[in-house]
Amino acid sequence: MMIRVLAIFIILMLPASMALAEGGGADKLMQLDRDFSSHSAKLGAKSAWEKYMAESSVQLNAGEQPTIGKDRIMEGFAAWPDYARLTWAPLGGDISASGDLGYTWGRYVYRTKDAEGKEVESHGKYMTIWKLQTDGSWKVVLDGGNQNPPPGPE
Amino acid sequence: MMIRVLAIFIILMLPASMALAEGGGADKLMQLDRDFSSHSAKLGAKSAWEKYMAESSVQLNAGEQPTIGKDRIMEGFAAWPDYARLTWAPLGGDISASGDLGYTWGRYVYRTKDAEGKEVESHGKYMTIWKLQTDGSWKVVLDGGNQNPPPGPE
Repeated sequence: MMIRVLAIFIILMLPASMALAEGGGADKLMQLDRDFSSHSAKLGAKSAWEKYMAESSVQLNAGEQPTIGKDRIMEGFAAWPDYARLTWAPLGGDISASGDLGYTWGRYVYRTKDAEGKEVESHGKYMTIWKLQTDGSWKVVLDGGNQNPPPGPE
Repeated sequence: MMIRVLAIFIILMLPASMALAEGGGADKLMQLDRDFSSHSAKLGAKSAWEKYMAESSVQLNAGEQPTIGKDRIMEGFAAWPDYARLTWAPLGGDISASGDLGYTWGRYVYRTKDAEGKEVESHGKYMTIWKLQTDGSWKVVLDGGNQNPPPGPE
């Protein structure tokens, strides 16, 4: 009886997991990544990572040793000036058939001010691993990136 | 009848997918990543990426625009001198419950020679996305990294 109930449950769930595998899930992660960037644009990176990052998250920042754990990553953001803004846009991504693990990648722009108060920006690309949490939310478990010259028309 | 056969198939497959979710799969990806590095140590990065990279792969190299597709990535490796060696070791990773998508991350060392022929090395960290292919092999679909000073004792 228990096995039959489980079988019926799994059959009912199959169309949902197949829809995810067919790309619907990747679209969802890319939209989540855009929401993450919008939050960062409005309220800053500290607030955005506080909301979207898992406790066990790892960050791979250029020029630094790996930063392991949400507390240490937040210490890194604490040094950012309030006017600094990191925003980004995903160019690709994928999600597992089981809909519990996925990634996005794309381009970022970091805008801040130099010592004379003049606005400056740097460009780069990033990749982010997303994992479904037990409470049903998606969180960033690993992210990293590196710089490149400003992109030309594509 | 078809539904019952499908249900029995899924029930038979459940223990396998649960075993992957419990960490066995992540260990497998980390070992695959070590094999990938061993191949690179022995035969060079060109040969290693040729073997382990998916056709649709994307590479995020510091200082460059995103490199999209195996052909363009291989063009990048073509410029590497034969004596250059990129090796790495994973420090973490995960795999989806469905066992079709996962990632590894860790530290790399790049060894080459300077203009005077003296051996030089640079250190960094990387993240790699792995996807199960239709032929049953795992391939790299996205990788990127950045430099850091040589790590101290950890």
